[in-house]
Amino acid sequence: MAEYIIALDAMGGDNAPDAIVKGAIAALRKYGDVKILLAGPSQRLKPLIDSAEDVRARMELIEADEVIGMDESPMLAVRKKVNSSMVQAVLAVREHRAGAVVSAGSTGALLACGMLRLGRIPGVERPALASAFPGLKKPWLLIDLGANVDCQPKYLAQFGLMGSVYMHSVMGVADPQVGLANIGVEAEKGNKTVREAYALMTAQKSYRFCGNCEARVAPMGEFDVVVADGFAGNIILKYTEGMAEAMMAMLKESLMSSFATKIGAALSKPAFRAFKRRLDYNAYGGAPLLGVEGAVVKAHGSSGEEAICNAVRQARTMLEGGVVERIREGLAGLESV
Amino acid sequence: MAEYIIALDAMGGDNAPDAIVKGAIAALRKYGDVKILLAGPSQRLKPLIDSAEDVRARMELIEADEVIGMDESPMLAVRKKVNSSMVQAVLAVREHRAGAVVSAGSTGALLACGMLRLGRIPGVERPALASAFPGLKKPWLLIDLGANVDCQPKYLAQFGLMGSVYMHSVMGVADPQVGLANIGVEAEKGNKTVREAYALMTAQKSYRFCGNCEARVAPMGEFDVVVADGFAGNIILKYTEGMAEAMMAMLKESLMSSFATKIGAALSKPAFRAFKRRLDYNAYGGAPLLGVEGAVVKAHGSSGEEAICNAVRQARTMLEGGVVERIREGLAGLESV
Repeated sequence: MAEYIIALDAMGGDNAPDAIVKGAIAALRKYGDVKILLAGPSQRLKPLIDSAEDVRARMELIEADEVIGMDESPMLAVRKKVNSSMVQAVLAVREHRAGAVVSAGSTGALLACGMLRLGRIPGVERPALASAFPGLKKPWLLIDLGANVDCQPKYLAQFGLMGSVYMHSVMGVADPQVGLANIGVEAEKGNKTVREAYALMTAQKSYRFCGNCEARVAPMGEFDVVVADGFAGNIILKYTEGMAEAMMAMLKESLMSSFATKIGAALSKPAFRAFKRRLDYNAYGGAPLLGVEGAVVKAHGSSGEEAICNAVRQARTMLEGGVVERIREGLAGLESV
Repeated sequence: MAEYIIALDAMGGDNAPDAIVKGAIAALRKYGDVKILLAGPSQRLKPLIDSAEDVRARMELIEADEVIGMDESPMLAVRKKVNSSMVQAVLAVREHRAGAVVSAGSTGALLACGMLRLGRIPGVERPALASAFPGLKKPWLLIDLGANVDCQPKYLAQFGLMGSVYMHSVMGVADPQVGLANIGVEAEKGNKTVREAYALMTAQKSYRFCGNCEARVAPMGEFDVVVADGFAGNIILKYTEGMAEAMMAMLKESLMSSFATKIGAALSKPAFRAFKRRLDYNAYGGAPLLGVEGAVVKAHGSSGEEAICNAVRQARTMLEGGVVERIREGLAGLESV
């Protein structure tokens, strides 16, 4: 019996619909308690799903003949393209036909869709996008990745709660240590917004606030959750990608500079592969959109079968852990301060 | 004949005064047109400088019997400790006994000292701290590193000018490409401040503004100058340190995981050393404080002889390139928009 029903935007991402459907089938084979609703053009999807007889009964199609492109204005697209695979998948959650939605389509459109169609959990000021990153000690969650470029202190305090709930319920961290991204550890450091957020976060009792987190310690994994406004968060997200790419290229150049180092590099290949895998933050699944009425996972645009399967698992874990309900409960505690 | 007179805070930094004096002596041996004024307790410094007979004539002592500690409140320390080595070195510039000042002491104190004692170049809204970083194609300058956590659009537009002048005059870049750190390339991206800064930077003709720079492309070295407010800039600075440290540690762990990769790592050692050197942004010298009436270089607190020698060279190049004069000229162009 299917306990967890997940709607999947079958047409979102670079490899849609083939890899998306394959990922869905792989997830269904792994998790017997999952059912998937695939949104997209049924004449195109039907042959793809019919081939998987063993799990066919746990797949359902939602007719959607439009696709939201990566370059469309998110707000406009979400309003106008009601018959798009993304909007239809989200509507399944809104209408309680599914508990969670996964999409590898446009981030902006999924954000807009989550906010407009699902709405905020009562009390949530601003939903936020989060992602787990590899850390030296352990993975850490960065929230917000760019959904809110201008933030008030209260939003940041709520991001701390939502991040803490996610790390606890989905990543299994007992009592997540929450830090506030800042330019120094002292309470009086930073701009006006973070100074006020620091005070709010210190006063609340809904999660474990451990003070300011300097950007130098974030990759060490000393905090489980790092809170930032969407501007700083997006810069950290993209700088991480850029630095990893630049560092790998520089390392390669250095290794190719002499015969001995070339031999050394050849022998070390398994280590470099392991290193690259460890740096790949997509291994932790997609980016959850937290604070809306439903579990929403944004999978990477380049997601293949495995990434989609992971994103479905992640959505399943968000449902199992009751992320939405826990955020609702935690907010009540935050408000009482 | 000494053309360039540089005041040096002989008591600033972890290795003061020995490494500082040694660095000064090394610089004097390299650059025949430099004279150095060493600020510190003369009875302690005299034996150190007397030993270097060949360049002794181009060293002078400034009596200063106090030291500003790393943990002192910058503003208080700078106001009260007039006889500190840092304040005395800066005063030498203010009184035109020297053109530039180098210190490896407290960053906050040097900022405060530069602003309070030297004052701003007329028209400069906020002096800013900058540093060159390694990039895949070429080094790039990040400005501001944290001197101004709250910025108005006009400050950012001026940082672009100051960064451009520095990269041209000191790093020899013909027509520096200036970018604005932002979360997307489009003009309408980002928070209110950066959107307005984008408009100002596009309108001016004093330097070559090339649009928004996403954090992902910064480490590629596609821009010569990346402008950010001190909050985002400080996060990038410290995240760079943290990520490099975490990545090196992860790579080491991967390399030590099997016998073959250990042998490979041993053979690749020269490449790793070259890679580490390439990542070390201190190789580009200290961090210039731009926008004040004098050339100010903040050397890293852990600077040894070589780093101090490099910082003196950098200060010399700032004087040779007329950085202060060029900022003054460029500002006139900015104002006319």
